[in-house]
Amino acid sequence: MSNPKFRRLALIGIGLIGSSIAHVVRREGLAEEIVISTRSAHTLRRAEELGLGDRYCLDAAEAVEDADLVILCVPVGACEAVTRWIAPALSPGAIVSDVGSTKASVVRQMAPHLPDNVHFIPGHPIAGTEESGPDAGFADLFRNRWCILTPVEGTSPDALERLAAFWTDCGSMVDTMDAEHHDLVLAIVSHLPHIIAYNIVGTADDLAAVTKSEVIKYSASGFRDFTRLAASDPTMWRDVCLHNKDAILEMLSRFSEDLAALQRSIRWGDGDALFDLFTRTRGIRRSIIAAGQETATPNFGRDKPGESERR
Amino acid sequence: MSNPKFRRLALIGIGLIGSSIAHVVRREGLAEEIVISTRSAHTLRRAEELGLGDRYCLDAAEAVEDADLVILCVPVGACEAVTRWIAPALSPGAIVSDVGSTKASVVRQMAPHLPDNVHFIPGHPIAGTEESGPDAGFADLFRNRWCILTPVEGTSPDALERLAAFWTDCGSMVDTMDAEHHDLVLAIVSHLPHIIAYNIVGTADDLAAVTKSEVIKYSASGFRDFTRLAASDPTMWRDVCLHNKDAILEMLSRFSEDLAALQRSIRWGDGDALFDLFTRTRGIRRSIIAAGQETATPNFGRDKPGESERR
Repeated sequence: MSNPKFRRLALIGIGLIGSSIAHVVRREGLAEEIVISTRSAHTLRRAEELGLGDRYCLDAAEAVEDADLVILCVPVGACEAVTRWIAPALSPGAIVSDVGSTKASVVRQMAPHLPDNVHFIPGHPIAGTEESGPDAGFADLFRNRWCILTPVEGTSPDALERLAAFWTDCGSMVDTMDAEHHDLVLAIVSHLPHIIAYNIVGTADDLAAVTKSEVIKYSASGFRDFTRLAASDPTMWRDVCLHNKDAILEMLSRFSEDLAALQRSIRWGDGDALFDLFTRTRGIRRSIIAAGQETATPNFGRDKPGESERR
Repeated sequence: MSNPKFRRLALIGIGLIGSSIAHVVRREGLAEEIVISTRSAHTLRRAEELGLGDRYCLDAAEAVEDADLVILCVPVGACEAVTRWIAPALSPGAIVSDVGSTKASVVRQMAPHLPDNVHFIPGHPIAGTEESGPDAGFADLFRNRWCILTPVEGTSPDALERLAAFWTDCGSMVDTMDAEHHDLVLAIVSHLPHIIAYNIVGTADDLAAVTKSEVIKYSASGFRDFTRLAASDPTMWRDVCLHNKDAILEMLSRFSEDLAALQRSIRWGDGDALFDLFTRTRGIRRSIIAAGQETATPNFGRDKPGESERR
């Protein structure tokens, strides 16, 4: 690692993302000391049992003392409260960042409460699994995935470069864009897919004519693909919906319009329109595989011979 | 194999399902002879290069001569034409089945044209990948997956038992139900998920504000899960939409109603309603994993450490 390391990293929140940062920072030696804070004593104890950090504090303000890098790893709805808590204790010159899935809201929540002598650079590593909590993290989560930074006007280029280097050292590729564009992009690539997945799983759950056991038995015919996203952390996703409302409502409207057109093609038996759409969508997957963001193995590789026997 | 084998199996159509049947029948010795027919000379030649059968015929009528098991592995929209073609050549006592994803339509298309001296038993193996064509098949496709048979009234119990044993020998678990119930169940577990996946991928493809490269780069945040189903065979899925119209329109209506309610919760900031839905949907995935129909590994197991580096 030729990049300058951080002296003290404070992670506020230690779920899937926080614990994955802890793992990779330890493995790559990206900080001399890791301080972990979370509001739940139970979770904090678990983080300590897992050996994720060097020090553990229930008090977030205590955790950020003398830290030169502070990363909030909490649901986006908690950013303002945490920022108010830690702001008086922040060290001058510290980089303060986050990992939230919405960015304009995070800026609105955090920027007004931070002292002028820290470097506030919002961030979002585009990585995750359907698991949550401190046990879910692993050092390779960010490898080959993008991390988006959304610096506000007047951000120090040096601080931005240090934070970008940190994420590169975590295995990520780094992009910068403004918070509003981030929120629009994520609304379509992440928020809408999660909402649709939650919705379809809910619709299936409600069906009386089809027993739940049938939905489960025959889920390999398509349904199961949606259940992964619909098993994601409910608190995190409630907050995403509440904090990226406008972009999400816009994408939902577009989706619903398109679905109405598709429904009409089905009702009127317009086979050509169906065939055209079903052909057009094929190419996108090939591009995602070519970009290294997806496996090329059929069924995501989950049905490898022998696997079903081991279960 | 203690079950009586078939003397001659005729596969009409040799895509993903047909070629997978050929592989498993060969491996398990379920038929003495496999005859393959498909309307495309190019595909038939490919099947021969792959050694999937013992004989290859462009003429489907010729293929079914003296066959005691005939399985149509064609898009559901082709069932009537194929049945008219092969009917005069069918051997008395033969079992005639199919693998189509809709069943009431298949019964309507096939039953009127079949001679009385054959056993018509529609079937649907609930298995597949997003790949298609004769190269996509593999012997383990049906292992640990359900196969639904929808016998019509007056079906010979002996013939039904022989066909069920055949699918069991292919690795499947076998269920029987009536065609209408099948179509309702599959509309929610398979057809709706595919239509929704096609639709969301289409919506993303249309967005000008977000470049296509951004959709691809950041797809690991959720979108990529939908692209697998949306990469499925367009002809097959056009036919499913056209041939299970009523059940699909019913499920689309329910889905859209639920989505409208969810959209309203987002617009009005009803965090509790969002949290409740997002919590309820979590349990279904656990049940699917417990039923052996899904892997428990995060991200479907596709992001195993090291995999991204190999790509």
